[in-house]
Amino acid sequence: MHVLIIGAAGMLGRKLTQRLVRDGTLAEKSITDLTLVDVVAPQAPEGFSGKTRLMSVDLSASAVAAQLVEARPNVIFHFAAIVSGEAEADFEKGYRINLDGTRDLFEAIRLAHLEDGYHPRVVFASSIAVVGAPLPYPIPDDFHTTPLTSYGTQKAISELLLADYTRRGFLDGIGIRLPTICIRPGAPNKAASGFFSNILREPLVGQEAVLPVPDSIRHWHTSPRSAVGFMIHAASMDLDRVGPRRSLSMPGVSATVGDQIEALRRVAGDAAVALIRREPDAAITRMCEGWAPGFEATRARKLGFVAEDRFDDIIRAHIEDELGGTI
Amino acid sequence: MHVLIIGAAGMLGRKLTQRLVRDGTLAEKSITDLTLVDVVAPQAPEGFSGKTRLMSVDLSASAVAAQLVEARPNVIFHFAAIVSGEAEADFEKGYRINLDGTRDLFEAIRLAHLEDGYHPRVVFASSIAVVGAPLPYPIPDDFHTTPLTSYGTQKAISELLLADYTRRGFLDGIGIRLPTICIRPGAPNKAASGFFSNILREPLVGQEAVLPVPDSIRHWHTSPRSAVGFMIHAASMDLDRVGPRRSLSMPGVSATVGDQIEALRRVAGDAAVALIRREPDAAITRMCEGWAPGFEATRARKLGFVAEDRFDDIIRAHIEDELGGTI
Repeated sequence: MHVLIIGAAGMLGRKLTQRLVRDGTLAEKSITDLTLVDVVAPQAPEGFSGKTRLMSVDLSASAVAAQLVEARPNVIFHFAAIVSGEAEADFEKGYRINLDGTRDLFEAIRLAHLEDGYHPRVVFASSIAVVGAPLPYPIPDDFHTTPLTSYGTQKAISELLLADYTRRGFLDGIGIRLPTICIRPGAPNKAASGFFSNILREPLVGQEAVLPVPDSIRHWHTSPRSAVGFMIHAASMDLDRVGPRRSLSMPGVSATVGDQIEALRRVAGDAAVALIRREPDAAITRMCEGWAPGFEATRARKLGFVAEDRFDDIIRAHIEDELGGTI
Repeated sequence: MHVLIIGAAGMLGRKLTQRLVRDGTLAEKSITDLTLVDVVAPQAPEGFSGKTRLMSVDLSASAVAAQLVEARPNVIFHFAAIVSGEAEADFEKGYRINLDGTRDLFEAIRLAHLEDGYHPRVVFASSIAVVGAPLPYPIPDDFHTTPLTSYGTQKAISELLLADYTRRGFLDGIGIRLPTICIRPGAPNKAASGFFSNILREPLVGQEAVLPVPDSIRHWHTSPRSAVGFMIHAASMDLDRVGPRRSLSMPGVSATVGDQIEALRRVAGDAAVALIRREPDAAITRMCEGWAPGFEATRARKLGFVAEDRFDDIIRAHIEDELGGTI
């Protein structure tokens, strides 16, 4: 089993790599080859006995996609993307990486398919940014994709391509619409959505965190651990059960900021909650009001995708995976 | 007012051209320039006093899109497309014309916008093929686009691009999801959907027509006259009322084949109905069962788009527009 991860240096790519190395298998087959690709050089995983190949390339550059499929990886995880803010700030770069890069990959697979019948599993990381306000709560599986960012547009287009290339028999694709990942490990970041993680991660280690929105803001979350679980399941499951609608809204926890804070109180006490400093920001609040409050995710749950049920469990997963199990 | 029609030689392009020449105005402005573009040479319209320019070009060819926007047309109707069957038979050609051609056009407009603030109205002909079975009846406006053809995929992607280019301020776009046009004038064609028109158009002039599906098949129709009306309204209306969701499912008549036949009986009598010969075709029936049975089209109706209410009126429109008013 040869596994290719495009976007391997990002948070999700690194966590998936660790999990694959730990498991040693994917879809009940032994992993013999691991190709890790990103625009910045990915790190070689420790403890992997198979063959590792590290590549630092721009997916949208000429001939790169063909090079990636040359060794005919059995499973391709495609996570590479310019993030939302950058795709909004640089229109051309967003389309080049997020749309053309993805299409180049699918085209390279199609040409390989025409050559020798190559037909890999392709797990594509999509996003809840494919939907746009006004949104119902919960959002049903058959709700239309009307993104309000160029990033969301590029993800929604990639979902359509993935479904068509799958339907035509060129690849075996599945799109995973990830909830916002919470608690994101690492340093606080300046993304507008960063506070959802900051207000938990920082107080858990005794640090202050800023909350720019009211407690009533509702959003849709899943842990890094569950996100990796989605990817493993997507790479392993029988996709004939999915049918032609190949992108699935993943399960998650719908929580208001108030719910998040009360979960923190239950897990870490009043002292942790006291470290949250309220600094209302009208611009961030307005943006958040347009974000997805939560999905039904009925199809994904029926197909065996599993996430936390309660926000407390999201916090506990962080303590176990990032803080050695104790606070 | 300079009007550009891309795909001007097709049925809809020709009918729209006739209507524009007859009206002499669009959006309450006098039409001074008419540029008609298609891959086959469009015909010069009779009776137009302004300047006409005819161009026979392939929209996806290098530099063609830039050439089309060079004269900065105020309104662009974009109808050019490889039809469903051909886009399915020739994967590469379908993507080249229906996706790349459209994107090239939008990109040329964006670059012109960056140069001098150019900001045309763009009316894009989309299709009910953006949805795919299983479908509810009626299909709500917020139903997801999960096309089951490459053509439908290319139209759905173009809708997403149109919305994003509009949101970013590069153009003022609106996507018109056309029902199946019935009664299509001209000779019977071999498209799988051709029988919807054939079983009416041929008996109205005393000719036999073949019906390959059962009377129970339900589908979504509008007359050529209404389709032209949608385009005129889309080019004239205040799009600020539409908001960011820029593609609209148009109103139409939802009718079973049995409803169509009874309408024919009311308008043209038993003798016309007797000319319909039933030759059941399992393959065509299976295809039809996956097609859209009808849309709510609530948003479009509220925004002033108007179609026939009853199938009888669709037949009468054909008699008036194609048969000189009598049968």
